[in-house]
Amino acid sequence: MTDLTGEAALIDQHCHGVVTTDLDRLAFEALLTEATRATPDRSRFDSMLGLAVRRWCAPVLGLPAHVGPDEYLERRAALGWWEASARLLRAAGVTDWLVDAGFAPVALTGLPEVADLAGGTAHEIVRLETVAERVAGLAGSAEEFAADLETELHRAAAGAVGLKSVAAYRGGLDLPARPPSAAALSAAVGRWFAVGGRLTDPLVVGWLVHLGVRVGAEFGLPLQLHTGFGDDDLRLHHADPSLLTDFLAATRDSGVTVVLLHCWPFHRQAAYLAHVFGHVVVDVGLAVPHVGARSGAVLAELLELAPFGAVCFSSDGYGLPELHYLGAWLWRRELGRLLDAWIADDVLTCADAERLVAAVARDNALRTYSRVSE
Amino acid sequence: MTDLTGEAALIDQHCHGVVTTDLDRLAFEALLTEATRATPDRSRFDSMLGLAVRRWCAPVLGLPAHVGPDEYLERRAALGWWEASARLLRAAGVTDWLVDAGFAPVALTGLPEVADLAGGTAHEIVRLETVAERVAGLAGSAEEFAADLETELHRAAAGAVGLKSVAAYRGGLDLPARPPSAAALSAAVGRWFAVGGRLTDPLVVGWLVHLGVRVGAEFGLPLQLHTGFGDDDLRLHHADPSLLTDFLAATRDSGVTVVLLHCWPFHRQAAYLAHVFGHVVVDVGLAVPHVGARSGAVLAELLELAPFGAVCFSSDGYGLPELHYLGAWLWRRELGRLLDAWIADDVLTCADAERLVAAVARDNALRTYSRVSE
Amino acid sequence: MTDLTGEAALIDQHCHGVVTTDLDRLAFEALLTEATRATPDRSRFDSMLGLAVRRWCAPVLGLPAHVGPDEYLERRAALGWWEASARLLRAAGVTDWLVDAGFAPVALTGLPEVADLAGGTAHEIVRLETVAERVAGLAGSAEEFAADLETELHRAAAGAVGLKSVAAYRGGLDLPARPPSAAALSAAVGRWFAVGGRLTDPLVVGWLVHLGVRVGAEFGLPLQLHTGFGDDDLRLHHADPSLLTDFLAATRDSGVTVVLLHCWPFHRQAAYLAHVFGHVVVDVGLAVPHVGARSGAVLAELLELAPFGAVCFSSDGYGLPELHYLGAWLWRRELGRLLDAWIADDVLTCADAERLVAAVARDNALRTYSRVSE
Repeated sequence: MTDLTGEAALIDQHCHGVVTTDLDRLAFEALLTEATRATPDRSRFDSMLGLAVRRWCAPVLGLPAHVGPDEYLERRAALGWWEASARLLRAAGVTDWLVDAGFAPVALTGLPEVADLAGGTAHEIVRLETVAERVAGLAGSAEEFAADLETELHRAAAGAVGLKSVAAYRGGLDLPARPPSAAALSAAVGRWFAVGGRLTDPLVVGWLVHLGVRVGAEFGLPLQLHTGFGDDDLRLHHADPSLLTDFLAATRDSGVTVVLLHCWPFHRQAAYLAHVFGHVVVDVGLAVPHVGARSGAVLAELLELAPFGAVCFSSDGYGLPELHYLGAWLWRRELGRLLDAWIADDVLTCADAERLVAAVARDNALRTYSRVSE
Repeated sequence: MTDLTGEAALIDQHCHGVVTTDLDRLAFEALLTEATRATPDRSRFDSMLGLAVRRWCAPVLGLPAHVGPDEYLERRAALGWWEASARLLRAAGVTDWLVDAGFAPVALTGLPEVADLAGGTAHEIVRLETVAERVAGLAGSAEEFAADLETELHRAAAGAVGLKSVAAYRGGLDLPARPPSAAALSAAVGRWFAVGGRLTDPLVVGWLVHLGVRVGAEFGLPLQLHTGFGDDDLRLHHADPSLLTDFLAATRDSGVTVVLLHCWPFHRQAAYLAHVFGHVVVDVGLAVPHVGARSGAVLAELLELAPFGAVCFSSDGYGLPELHYLGAWLWRRELGRLLDAWIADDVLTCADAERLVAAVARDNALRTYSRVSE
Repeated sequence: MTDLTGEAALIDQHCHGVVTTDLDRLAFEALLTEATRATPDRSRFDSMLGLAVRRWCAPVLGLPAHVGPDEYLERRAALGWWEASARLLRAAGVTDWLVDAGFAPVALTGLPEVADLAGGTAHEIVRLETVAERVAGLAGSAEEFAADLETELHRAAAGAVGLKSVAAYRGGLDLPARPPSAAALSAAVGRWFAVGGRLTDPLVVGWLVHLGVRVGAEFGLPLQLHTGFGDDDLRLHHADPSLLTDFLAATRDSGVTVVLLHCWPFHRQAAYLAHVFGHVVVDVGLAVPHVGARSGAVLAELLELAPFGAVCFSSDGYGLPELHYLGAWLWRRELGRLLDAWIADDVLTCADAERLVAAVARDNALRTYSRVSE
């Protein structure tokens, strides 16, 4: 048996900041789930993720494995959020954190604090919808909106390593192959402005994603897309990455790499897209921490069809540094075991496995995010 | 290793009666499948379920494991249906049977016989469509139908522990977030009455399910929904529980727990819904007996994202007491093995595993079905 | 432990010819993927299929297991394509090859060469769309097209063992339950002829598939349908076999067996269809070579609900004889291991396992393809 993954220096291609306060049990549990409401009769610790926190995060905080939730949270509070976060983030073994700071219904650390806490480098991922909504709040007309957004995205892209869209949450992934006409866009923006609120108009979202492709091509940035499960603001079947086929076929020559994030339970579908489209990259972030000890099964399903050169690592850690840590730890543990088993079964050689680990841990991300360099 | 599940007293949250006659091979095989027609060149024993009957039911009837189908059926006939059923149902270790008696193309035992055969308690689940069709047969107008059905459902709910809809079979699970207007309902019922027959109009079905929510809230009853595979009267992709998202979002404050039954092959999707909606409960009944020795894999996939407080046990046994028994036995065997493996792998503690088993075997059902009490 | 599958003489119910030239690395890699374009920064050997070629095909060509791609291709070139193909095809242990010769963007061996190379019998599968497009190129009107196609299909069917449609690639599997009217067909064919090119009009494709059913019934031929993944000319969610439900319900009394090919990642859905429809047969060809060492997991998922009498073997080998060989070898290795594990776990007997192997290797195909005889 080998230790293939234990020392791999990871690039986390998609995560968020952590909360900047100490958390009581209610607040901690609220971040231990994709549900947006409390479930008083169901502790969120009673889940694969909850078991994983008690089993693998507790020792990082100096506790015995499997301590109860209250004991875990007492220790966490005694250390303070800063120290607890620093220990967990540093234990992840990640050198580069690609941070989407565009979603913060609760206050999270920004990029400098992530870097400081984790002892690594933080890079920015620009969330298109956040920029679009900010610009919309200031624009007087559809034309002004489109022009201002383009300007603002250029500005943002100049300092970022990648772009991201949550179109999956804003009407779903059935994105058009081509952007709408200026007239159609203008009418749709007009309708949106008339009612205000979140950007959910599918035509405007489709236009925004294509704008992201254009800006990404100019700046050499990939475009990340949320796919698969997430919080309850999602219709899961509209987040099936298969729906992206026409969009992917249309953007294959754009020069932009499209990153399918998370994907579960459609990770086999995502693997197929990465198989047939050379500009598609996939991960199973978010899923890995959530499914805990089942990550190995999910990774194995992903690898069935995904080219090894198209798989990246991410944690999608959000709010709790436990998620960042477990994303990395479970990836190491479960991918390592899977490869060890395949080596023992003579399916591949140690050298093959080492190359696969290097590719997924780091090399594929370096190729995808050209601004993140060794 | 532990014996976590062997002695758990189960609540079977969804099953049906058993047939009240001795069965020849043709009749037995017809109930050993979800197909509604015979397949002369394919014995239904040549399946994971068929293997499971020969392997695990045979000993309950005093036969060696793996006996051939004919020997099995001879012994079954020699015992007589009553004795064979009693042995199998009692061996299931179920204290409470929640029986949907609303679907009986063949004559099945009613609740008293189930209780008598099984030595447990039988509780009624009211199938909305069955009541609606019975009331429709007597009603003179759409208005009379709506009023009579409400009266009838109140009467039925008073004696039941839960309600159930088979909307998945009647147009699919893309249920509306809100019930139709009285005028739209009246027109749709009018159209239905004009042609007669089964209730399949999606507008009427949507209204009926919302009526079920309202009545369920009044009486403190959960609403069970068939999801996933079933007989050939189904379009499988219309039975994907993801389609329920808008309906679930709209009913989260209704006070009614929604139970997603069966779910396979969409059990990961169902687990997601139970994860993000606190009023959603799931099981993989029907799948467990059918997939036989593969139940462990299905249960593991379910547990990836489902909160442990949201998973219940059911067999969906129908017609053959073998299905009730295998539902329970395979659940014990396979969940026990899965947890034993996780304990051996230090993923969770024995105490964690015991609490999980207690939750799924019984506690979650007791919380969901408040009228079923210890 | 047993050796259940090692000696089974297989019928490959669906494959294609092999390329008739020596291949450099670029050309070989182009056939080692379903992608239609090169991916310069991702070697196609870095995949489960690539590992499988190096691990299991290399020894067939007299090389050590796990040799590097260049060494493998040097040896292959030294042997020459004919000798390399002959070794791989003969090592597959297939007696009968059912060859779809209707798709050849690159030059492939025809049936006589396949038989000659493999030392077995080659049988023809007629691809409906290929015939339709050939006839369309010669027809002067919609009426002439329909009449000529019927004549041509009769002629082709007389020499074939089965028909096949790639409707999944031509608008998707949501096929109509009934063929269109003559007037609707005529209008649709007129529209097609006006623009020319590939047949993709869903109405014409639907008509063609129903014509296939009619001709298949006359000649006692089954109808194969591509389902699930394939090359990038596919929208994966339109290739979900669940979409076929109405078509399958409508054709259950046609006398024609419908063969669902490939199916991954919808193989559980396909298994359900084979479970409820007695005229449906399934395989996981194409997936087996591509997912390599993961084939056992895919086969296990397929067997959850598929009647053992409804599963066939195929490789879907195309271009590279490595795919034909790996389809057979991985099927032997992984199904054998799965059954060995189940025997060791006392889930079934050796005799049960042997019957299952015989059914899937050969007996089910002999029943499906009545013109292929022992």
